[in-house]
Amino acid sequence: MSVTELTSPPAQPLYRTLADHYLGAIRSGVLTPGERMPSVRTLMRTHAVSLSTALQVCRHLESEGWLEARERSGYFVRQPRRALLAPVKEPEVATPDPAAYVGVHARVSAIVARGQQADVRVDLSGASGEATLYPSAALNRIATQVLRRYPLLLTQAVTPNGHPELQTAVARRALDMGVQIAPDEVIVTHGCIEALNLALRAVTQPGDTVAVESPTYYGLLQVLESLGLRAVEIPTSPRTGMSIEALEMAVQAYGNIRAVVVVPNLQNPLGCIMPDAAKRRMAAFCDANRIVLIEDDTYSPMADSPTPLKAIKAWDRTGNVIYCASLRKTVAPGVRLGWVIAGRWHERVQMLKFAQSRPNDSLLQVVVGRFVASGAYDRHLRALRQTLREQRERMAESIAGSFPAGTRLLVPAGGFAMWVELPPNVSSTDLFEAALAQGVRIAPGTMFSNLNRFDHYFRICFGLAPSADLEAALALLGQLTRQLSER
Amino acid sequence: MSVTELTSPPAQPLYRTLADHYLGAIRSGVLTPGERMPSVRTLMRTHAVSLSTALQVCRHLESEGWLEARERSGYFVRQPRRALLAPVKEPEVATPDPAAYVGVHARVSAIVARGQQADVRVDLSGASGEATLYPSAALNRIATQVLRRYPLLLTQAVTPNGHPELQTAVARRALDMGVQIAPDEVIVTHGCIEALNLALRAVTQPGDTVAVESPTYYGLLQVLESLGLRAVEIPTSPRTGMSIEALEMAVQAYGNIRAVVVVPNLQNPLGCIMPDAAKRRMAAFCDANRIVLIEDDTYSPMADSPTPLKAIKAWDRTGNVIYCASLRKTVAPGVRLGWVIAGRWHERVQMLKFAQSRPNDSLLQVVVGRFVASGAYDRHLRALRQTLREQRERMAESIAGSFPAGTRLLVPAGGFAMWVELPPNVSSTDLFEAALAQGVRIAPGTMFSNLNRFDHYFRICFGLAPSADLEAALALLGQLTRQLSER
Repeated sequence: MSVTELTSPPAQPLYRTLADHYLGAIRSGVLTPGERMPSVRTLMRTHAVSLSTALQVCRHLESEGWLEARERSGYFVRQPRRALLAPVKEPEVATPDPAAYVGVHARVSAIVARGQQADVRVDLSGASGEATLYPSAALNRIATQVLRRYPLLLTQAVTPNGHPELQTAVARRALDMGVQIAPDEVIVTHGCIEALNLALRAVTQPGDTVAVESPTYYGLLQVLESLGLRAVEIPTSPRTGMSIEALEMAVQAYGNIRAVVVVPNLQNPLGCIMPDAAKRRMAAFCDANRIVLIEDDTYSPMADSPTPLKAIKAWDRTGNVIYCASLRKTVAPGVRLGWVIAGRWHERVQMLKFAQSRPNDSLLQVVVGRFVASGAYDRHLRALRQTLREQRERMAESIAGSFPAGTRLLVPAGGFAMWVELPPNVSSTDLFEAALAQGVRIAPGTMFSNLNRFDHYFRICFGLAPSADLEAALALLGQLTRQLSER
Repeated sequence: MSVTELTSPPAQPLYRTLADHYLGAIRSGVLTPGERMPSVRTLMRTHAVSLSTALQVCRHLESEGWLEARERSGYFVRQPRRALLAPVKEPEVATPDPAAYVGVHARVSAIVARGQQADVRVDLSGASGEATLYPSAALNRIATQVLRRYPLLLTQAVTPNGHPELQTAVARRALDMGVQIAPDEVIVTHGCIEALNLALRAVTQPGDTVAVESPTYYGLLQVLESLGLRAVEIPTSPRTGMSIEALEMAVQAYGNIRAVVVVPNLQNPLGCIMPDAAKRRMAAFCDANRIVLIEDDTYSPMADSPTPLKAIKAWDRTGNVIYCASLRKTVAPGVRLGWVIAGRWHERVQMLKFAQSRPNDSLLQVVVGRFVASGAYDRHLRALRQTLREQRERMAESIAGSFPAGTRLLVPAGGFAMWVELPPNVSSTDLFEAALAQGVRIAPGTMFSNLNRFDHYFRICFGLAPSADLEAALALLGQLTRQLSER
């Protein structure tokens, strides 16, 4: 949201936005049944809203059955009317084992290849929305205008580091996340994955150790393996993100951790959001221990939050945080544009980007830069989040209705996918194979770690529009899980 | 040129195309004054043309003053009417020194940065044509059509490895270079530079040694340094390309050469073209010695040749050649699309491309794929080559007229830039600085090698349209060289 947009009227009343925010907290277990809702006075102060708005928030949640008013004590979270699963368990915090990512690529590739060979009718293995959820008409219109206005855009040399229109749009949006940078600090990349490659190449040598969340995005594990890096997996809470205590233990135990990669907002696959206090502490800890903090913040605009989430980079005082993000999930899955803000490694990342793939083409940078700079982006994000929220709720209910006892689920406060914990005796690899044989594809937990901890978890995407096929697929997954748990 | 295009009428009469071909050979010193021109019978056989066409070729060159007829002996190359410089000297063939590319990036970056800081009026340091030489109107029209026809192209997920339209167009064009591949063997990349990165990453480990041409493109030296590779520079003839004898000596002397990077067609910066016999020998030598041959063939469509030049890959029997190319120089300098055909390393390159930057966006692949598949591409290439040939001849004459004795020049048979040898006591670094101070930028020889051999050479681009500014810049360069040689 740009500065001007913050003061313009939102698409839905403010009380609804705030109510959705607290609903997310209830759904995700941050506020548990029986717990006291923040007081009306607290709501007024925290969100700078009027008494009447704060009261509307509570009354709306009460009327929807999520809160109950207790005389003279305020509002309390109710037991949900609808079936809800217990949330995914917290990890044990202990000194993590270092893991060399030998073979993770082969394993992930095998799973991906299996999925591509099969005849997939319902693909729930991804982490983005359907093409129709994105603003193709607006982007196409801008593209046509831009080509008319700058007829030599495809045939003239590109600008170093990135096109100023996109760099400026990114720098403006970064302000809302608490990050103050100049446009020319933005190095445009081929998606967040190239940004992560460049960040890691800039600060590590092959053989170095890098700390990552556990579970983490399998793409990151592939990058680490392809660069010859070792990794240590840090236990990560499905509510609050990477455990700083565990990271401290790992640093004490091994002492040679060169960098840490963190997804603070809507972590993939857990969907957790690191509290601001933890973000600040993480930035300070890494700085004090000379560990480079690489932040992947691709998902943050997808959070159900009345205000933009802060980046860890907001607490970076020394240029020790390398910030990476992209627009593929938020603007257009067919446009692979990302960027890196590399702090004190700016020069080295710039050199590596030049040597690896040269500066990006201009056309899509200008198109997307113009879209992101406009109010249309904010309107698109609000609509996209609303649609995904509805699809997420519907899917959570379907899973709660069809999966056997012992299944746990922590509904995230945004994003595109959920992390489901199966009963302890059910392997998600078995579920993956059984479902694939019937045309339904999920992402089994073993893709997200090199340790053998997550075989009874899987990631499921709620980016697909509701349909009979989707409902049938969820029923099938529940039924297969039931069969596997009874074996 | 596609198969169908080969039989369609060319833009100029066939005899003119063939005459230009031999004129190039005379200009570049392949045919020297006093030497016998191939007989009419030989011309008929080599090019499969009629007697009348073969005769027209010789008569045209005679009327232009390049050949003279001697009774009963045929045609001979005349001393040129116009001022021509002696060709650049051949290198000594000896066992090359291995060079670790420590610091080459810093040096190149310093030169690039100096050039960017200055107020440059005439930039002759590049190696491509002006934006207006490229088919922007056609590309923009196709882009607009494609967006209308496929409205979700920007918002739907991309296809793995590349878009089939571009893969198919590339595979068809490869046929003309003697390379038979299936479209899905083409892995689309962000320009040739990413293709080279992936090829090198696929077959080397940091610390390995790679053989390169000397002089070679500074971009390649940066890639090697950024990947932690050592290089050995192989003497390269300005006429026939990398010396296979010197490569053999280097292999015998060091034995640990893992790969060799060769630009067989219009090498950068020399502009030389490796004869087909040498291409075949190079492919066989590398295969027999278990050295991976990485071929960079970006410039070959720019050769003044009546038929497409062959790639070394055409003689690859075992998948040992990794072929890299791009369309930035031939179709659109603002579109960074390249590809790699990786032979027996296809799977590994595919994995590295996925881990490094994911498959490319679709839009520009479809646009450029459609253009390249059409006859408009052939027409564009013919016009582009013709313009560049005229600009090249004009520049060669200007240089011959303004530079002091001792300057040597080998006019290449195509491409965008020439390699100029200064009198032995003139440093091109000094010339670079002196010219830059007056707003003229060249690429000094030290950028093209890590050895100290090329300081009295520079590369100059003939991609700029004729203008008074350009003529003044060339006169200035000649005058500065004269001053420097008299110091």
